[in-house]
Amino acid sequence: MTAGGPLAIICGGGAFPLAVATAARRAGREVVLFPVRGFADADFAAWPHVWTRIGSFGQLRGEMKRRGCREVVFIGNVLRPRLRDVRFDWATLMLLPRIFGMLRGGDDHLLSSIGRIAEEAGFRLVGAHEVAPEILMPAGQLGAVAPSRDELDDVEVGRHALTVTGPLDIGQGLVVMQRHVVAMEAAEGTDLMLARVAELRRIGRITRPARCGVLVKLPKRGQDLRLDMPSLGVRTVEGAAKAGLAGIAVEAGGVIVADMVELVRAADAAGLFVYGLSPAAGAPE
Amino acid sequence: MTAGGPLAIICGGGAFPLAVATAARRAGREVVLFPVRGFADADFAAWPHVWTRIGSFGQLRGEMKRRGCREVVFIGNVLRPRLRDVRFDWATLMLLPRIFGMLRGGDDHLLSSIGRIAEEAGFRLVGAHEVAPEILMPAGQLGAVAPSRDELDDVEVGRHALTVTGPLDIGQGLVVMQRHVVAMEAAEGTDLMLARVAELRRIGRITRPARCGVLVKLPKRGQDLRLDMPSLGVRTVEGAAKAGLAGIAVEAGGVIVADMVELVRAADAAGLFVYGLSPAAGAPE
Repeated sequence: MTAGGPLAIICGGGAFPLAVATAARRAGREVVLFPVRGFADADFAAWPHVWTRIGSFGQLRGEMKRRGCREVVFIGNVLRPRLRDVRFDWATLMLLPRIFGMLRGGDDHLLSSIGRIAEEAGFRLVGAHEVAPEILMPAGQLGAVAPSRDELDDVEVGRHALTVTGPLDIGQGLVVMQRHVVAMEAAEGTDLMLARVAELRRIGRITRPARCGVLVKLPKRGQDLRLDMPSLGVRTVEGAAKAGLAGIAVEAGGVIVADMVELVRAADAAGLFVYGLSPAAGAPE
Repeated sequence: MTAGGPLAIICGGGAFPLAVATAARRAGREVVLFPVRGFADADFAAWPHVWTRIGSFGQLRGEMKRRGCREVVFIGNVLRPRLRDVRFDWATLMLLPRIFGMLRGGDDHLLSSIGRIAEEAGFRLVGAHEVAPEILMPAGQLGAVAPSRDELDDVEVGRHALTVTGPLDIGQGLVVMQRHVVAMEAAEGTDLMLARVAELRRIGRITRPARCGVLVKLPKRGQDLRLDMPSLGVRTVEGAAKAGLAGIAVEAGGVIVADMVELVRAADAAGLFVYGLSPAAGAPE
């Protein structure tokens, strides 16, 4: 057991929670998983775990303390819930005035506030990438397909646009075709944005040739990577392929990948490039 | 007949072409309409008109000269066509190298290039709002519903975001809810962006209460209003109502309205505010 005790992993949906748990255990760390009901969808049977839910902050805090956890990781998809779906315990109710304040702001605000609340309760918030660095996107070309000069120009247009829009806290992804931003991600998320590009092609609203355009995804400047790390997976590759794109560029070290081998296999099969951008001067730290 | 001869009005889709023609004639100007096949959908029978099509620049230039037109207005919806749908005449073919250059850039680039081509051919490009100022959105509250203090705060968040994103040539509209940009318009246009917000509510991806949020629409900084004036109409009001918004704010003098009476009637019926923003320091000119 390390100084931090077992690592508490608050688990949302998708493959990342078990990828992080596996990597942390491989690094010699004991772990306790806290899957969040309604979101977590992996098979936790083989792991020490305690189910929790949005609104049960008292129960969660108690379980983490009882098991000696001092450090906590948040990982996986947890969408902002409908208020009517949330049952509150007393500890959460005490926090409600602050939570309502958070819900008025953008995502950055919401997430960094959750981090502050966790730290005030005596836990150290750590990033998934800190306990499981092998899930970080590497720099350069990942699969068999190389981006062309024109495609790298589109990537730079997207990187610039995301750097400009970052402080507005709108979204972390966009699609560029022939130097023009044709879709910008906000509340809909990356998957629905890619579905929109596919639809705009179908209805003739986007007339550029197939196999044209890039998805660019960067963490927002100042984004707390311990709470809201952009991710990349097979579903993104499939969405990009359906949108008729040529490839995907994400920030190296700034995006997490649950299964690198599976990602490369899917990208190669679809003929898409996957590229890790080295953070540039002026890009998000 | 004025010094400019009859006014040539190149007519795309929607109600604006006849609104502009009516207003120009009311101001004593003779007009000739050039509806564009595949886009123009009004009833031109009562007006002097000559049908034209994308790709027939030689025919259009000849007809405008023959009728003594020296000034030309572009008005109405003309989406970027699929190349395979365009039949070219020789004059257009001679321009193809420049047109291909335009198609690589953003909309601003495309449109300002069309304007330059028209002016090189000896025509003066005038804005619909110059010959028909009564179609311009006025400042302040337009209908019966007043925006609240919170809603005006959302409007300011949207105005700021559009001012920041303007130089990126992405789009001219967005939706703000409780100070957070939840949708940003790009190639899809305003109507499809509003449909997206309605859908994100339906699937629970946006959980804010109904009757919350504003559509904000401004011309982009440096946008050539003679070619690409943002417009507002009943369809926008209906889309905003379906998206569960509280209202619409557009730049006074920077957005055109085909039928002000019909717009106010629709907004009042839906309980939405419609507000004309006075251009602020730092906002688009």
